[in-house]
Amino acid sequence: MNITIAGVGAMGSRFALMLHRAGHKVTLVDGWKEHVTAIQKDGLRANLNGEEVVAKLPIYFQSQVDPTLSNDLIILFTKAMQLEAMLADIQPLIHDDTAVLCLLNGIGHEEVIEKYVPRNQIMIGNTMWTAGMEEPGRAKLFGNGSIALKNLVADPKAEQAAYKVIETLNSAGLNAQYTENILYAIYKKACVNGTMNSLCTLLLANMADFGDTTPAHNIVVKIVSEFATVAKHENVDLNVTETVDYIEKNCYNRDTIGLHYPSMYQDLNEHNRLTEIDYINGAIARKGQQYGVDTPYCALITELVHCKEQLLGAK
Amino acid sequence: MNITIAGVGAMGSRFALMLHRAGHKVTLVDGWKEHVTAIQKDGLRANLNGEEVVAKLPIYFQSQVDPTLSNDLIILFTKAMQLEAMLADIQPLIHDDTAVLCLLNGIGHEEVIEKYVPRNQIMIGNTMWTAGMEEPGRAKLFGNGSIALKNLVADPKAEQAAYKVIETLNSAGLNAQYTENILYAIYKKACVNGTMNSLCTLLLANMADFGDTTPAHNIVVKIVSEFATVAKHENVDLNVTETVDYIEKNCYNRDTIGLHYPSMYQDLNEHNRLTEIDYINGAIARKGQQYGVDTPYCALITELVHCKEQLLGAK
Repeated sequence: MNITIAGVGAMGSRFALMLHRAGHKVTLVDGWKEHVTAIQKDGLRANLNGEEVVAKLPIYFQSQVDPTLSNDLIILFTKAMQLEAMLADIQPLIHDDTAVLCLLNGIGHEEVIEKYVPRNQIMIGNTMWTAGMEEPGRAKLFGNGSIALKNLVADPKAEQAAYKVIETLNSAGLNAQYTENILYAIYKKACVNGTMNSLCTLLLANMADFGDTTPAHNIVVKIVSEFATVAKHENVDLNVTETVDYIEKNCYNRDTIGLHYPSMYQDLNEHNRLTEIDYINGAIARKGQQYGVDTPYCALITELVHCKEQLLGAK
Repeated sequence: MNITIAGVGAMGSRFALMLHRAGHKVTLVDGWKEHVTAIQKDGLRANLNGEEVVAKLPIYFQSQVDPTLSNDLIILFTKAMQLEAMLADIQPLIHDDTAVLCLLNGIGHEEVIEKYVPRNQIMIGNTMWTAGMEEPGRAKLFGNGSIALKNLVADPKAEQAAYKVIETLNSAGLNAQYTENILYAIYKKACVNGTMNSLCTLLLANMADFGDTTPAHNIVVKIVSEFATVAKHENVDLNVTETVDYIEKNCYNRDTIGLHYPSMYQDLNEHNRLTEIDYINGAIARKGQQYGVDTPYCALITELVHCKEQLLGAK
């Protein structure tokens, strides 16, 4: 398959390398200058489960894409706030038969994507794979993961295309699954991000240490309840107790991921970058207003994270 | 007058020194060992507007007070969470004719005090004086201030006693005023603390820097609105716009106090001490529940500050 990875951060690098190694023709598009230059010079490099890998893949600045490029599949892997600019830049690459798959964290990206892509070409989902960047051009990729995805609109042709994308991803060992209730999966993961990412970022804590505090349980219940109330307005039935339980059992475990500082913490507190808060708790606060639902915990958390971004001069 | 200062922190030291210099017989009671020992050895010392002052004042551990001590006035100046233990310890000092004045930050202290003191002997208020501790036994006291106070119960004898206390405080230049609407004054100051103290503590910011962030205004409006809704249930009419205006005009001014890190910030982030959050935003959340009023901003802020206390191992 001819595949373009739009946004070659940590996760985009993982997908690019794994698909390339499975024999697919992978092209990269990104907007980060040092990164693009490093990949042009030395290829895309990674420590992949302890193995040093290098792939000489074609890479374009997003403002300089080649419109003649043939594309069966574009996988979107920008930061949420860079999604719209990326879509505007790569619009010449989106042909009538190009599937566009969004696996970004957060909620409501389809509303942005459908401004640039016909709805029946859009696929949404999320991934449990992890990835990190070591330096421009070089990623660190450990562990296993999975992908849940589905075509956005109910349509036999779109569904068939989704199954073809899944087959392609699985040919690279990416462990993708067609997921009927994809909005449920997206909301559930957003609950993890909307509690762990934002709270650890504000409190300068890892997940297990936060989980050990007395107020943790009540805060998580309150936030997940707001997500669930908003989700109900989108016909997603998110069980609060089950979701809270899932978060507490998984994220606070010191033997697995409990000592991890979530990506938002790293973005803001380590790399002084703007966060994706507007697409996580902020999306719930926005949708809450739209649906006439009270979401004060998500609203205040979003405001506090923005305060912190501004106080730290994040960019 | 025979005056006991119960809690000789920064503010207690100021009142003790100023009343002593005005010729009153001042006795100190405190629970902090290093501090008591230092005062026993070298007296209570301070830099008072640039002048070095020392006062050899009698000081007692609060667990070892002398019940024969005659007391016209006890001024309570503990941290809020130490108030009840102090009252239990000094109960032998509270005679039938002893006025007990509470000038602590925060809301609802009278509910604790009236467990130990007859209501007609209680006076409540607040103070705009400032004070800091340099080390055990030594305070740093600059600038001017004022005191607003009133007897708790409407009663001619209690009112007369309050005026006598005011006369005593003013003999020491403490600038006290009988304030009919004392709950309004207490709520208004609590709004300053409930916004500046808690938010600067969470965001690691001074007041002016916080004020410069885009979300600051909305967060302050939301918090003050919750204070006002609760205050209404206690027949206090707090104007939200006016109070927000007062906070923004005063606290964000870089030429006056804007660069100041509020006392709660200092307590937790500099001295690793537990905060008074339960008596500020926490009191509003508690009273909100009691009155059936939603106070999510105060509730979440209280929870986050407690998380931070626990993460830092504050004591």
